[in-house]
Amino acid sequence: MEKLSVFKIGGKVIDDGNGLNQFLSAFSEFRGKKILVHGGGKQIDGLSHRLGIKVTMVEGRRITDSGSLEVAEMVLGGLLNKNIVALLQSFQCNAIGMTGADGNLIRAVKRPLRQGIDYGWVGDVREVNSRLLANLLEMDMVPVIASLTHDKKGNMLNTNADTVAAEIAISVAALFETDLVYCFDLPGVLGDIDDLNSVIHELHIRDFPALKEKGLISKGMIPKIDNAFDALNRNVSRVILIGATNIEDYISGNGNSGTIISL
Amino acid sequence: MEKLSVFKIGGKVIDDGNGLNQFLSAFSEFRGKKILVHGGGKQIDGLSHRLGIKVTMVEGRRITDSGSLEVAEMVLGGLLNKNIVALLQSFQCNAIGMTGADGNLIRAVKRPLRQGIDYGWVGDVREVNSRLLANLLEMDMVPVIASLTHDKKGNMLNTNADTVAAEIAISVAALFETDLVYCFDLPGVLGDIDDLNSVIHELHIRDFPALKEKGLISKGMIPKIDNAFDALNRNVSRVILIGATNIEDYISGNGNSGTIISL
Repeated sequence: MEKLSVFKIGGKVIDDGNGLNQFLSAFSEFRGKKILVHGGGKQIDGLSHRLGIKVTMVEGRRITDSGSLEVAEMVLGGLLNKNIVALLQSFQCNAIGMTGADGNLIRAVKRPLRQGIDYGWVGDVREVNSRLLANLLEMDMVPVIASLTHDKKGNMLNTNADTVAAEIAISVAALFETDLVYCFDLPGVLGDIDDLNSVIHELHIRDFPALKEKGLISKGMIPKIDNAFDALNRNVSRVILIGATNIEDYISGNGNSGTIISL
Repeated sequence: MEKLSVFKIGGKVIDDGNGLNQFLSAFSEFRGKKILVHGGGKQIDGLSHRLGIKVTMVEGRRITDSGSLEVAEMVLGGLLNKNIVALLQSFQCNAIGMTGADGNLIRAVKRPLRQGIDYGWVGDVREVNSRLLANLLEMDMVPVIASLTHDKKGNMLNTNADTVAAEIAISVAALFETDLVYCFDLPGVLGDIDDLNSVIHELHIRDFPALKEKGLISKGMIPKIDNAFDALNRNVSRVILIGATNIEDYISGNGNSGTIISL
């Protein structure tokens, strides 16, 4: 099977102008088939603040009321997606920006109440149109996907970008030998959150419960790793967590950066 | 040659929730190949106002400083484009939202100073990727294009939506027998701006200067008609100006609504 890499970047990477440029330049140089998924929580918070819209988080998860959904559509589907696409185009990478609504790429359902909590316009992914992605890749285009989905009933939905990246990777794993590459602001999964040199280079599922119990894996990392195990269990070949600024090491295949997660 | 219709709607049509729904429903029913181009000046003004960004117009044209460009990207590329696509998807129309940056659809150049006026981040169209549009149409998708272009140097540019629609129609006219259908909040070109029953059903280029001189054609209509003549001179088959709420008449081909412009 041909190889495909699904890269994911979040708001912190996007917020660093030089870092983003460097990342996108390296991404453009990557010769294999590729997809980029992005979030933008930090920028959503910024615009919400400017508009006087209250940001409500419950246990680290955003509550998306209708005002917040509009902000997410503007920031993720508009500003960030288009700026990333325009930059990639300037690097001769034929990017095409999309959300889950475009070409019915990602159908989701509005999340039902969970333990009495109404998350609002948040989508749980049900179906990814992998055929569309394969067609666009075949046309030598590079899908750049904002973490928005839709319900096929006329509503856009906000969806966690780590989850969107995992679901995209899982959907194309039937067609390609797929890597899922989470690029973030740390060099990998750290054994000691205060020591950037404590990167765990290989993380096996069997070691995860112990690391979690000892508190060695930070809170924000846990959902990423849960997504990673989910992806590996559903035919994604490899999941890598790597610093966005070390992406060259993944691309060259020579480096020893980041964390490779395996079953 | 196969037929293709390029429809254009603006901010006023989009602003009317019921009207927009009715228009998109009718658009979905249209069985021929189709493309939708949209603007959103009214909504850009609204968000600018909320963000305290000053809207500067010179002779009816927007000055796009960097803050205004961000607003245009958010409103056109994000909020409006995604809401339209999600609604069309709910009507079983396989819409795919795009800007001029996506797939390098519309390359433009930043407008040079004109008579000493700096229009800011405004693009004059240079090249439309008609092959991409043909490929998407071949895949039974319906391109929904926001009136943003890019310069291939990493910058998004704001471009008049009437002009984008005309340039799209001109570019595909080599591949399809193309109609350009401007859908707006009036029933057509009016002979008397105060009388909605004074629609001019056929407007020939030879009659235009006299009508303009007599002040019978309103100011906002003139650039639309200029774009129309430009399109007809460059192989677009027909240009129609029609009320968005009368679009059924165009679709059924039975009605007598709107204005057909001819050379």
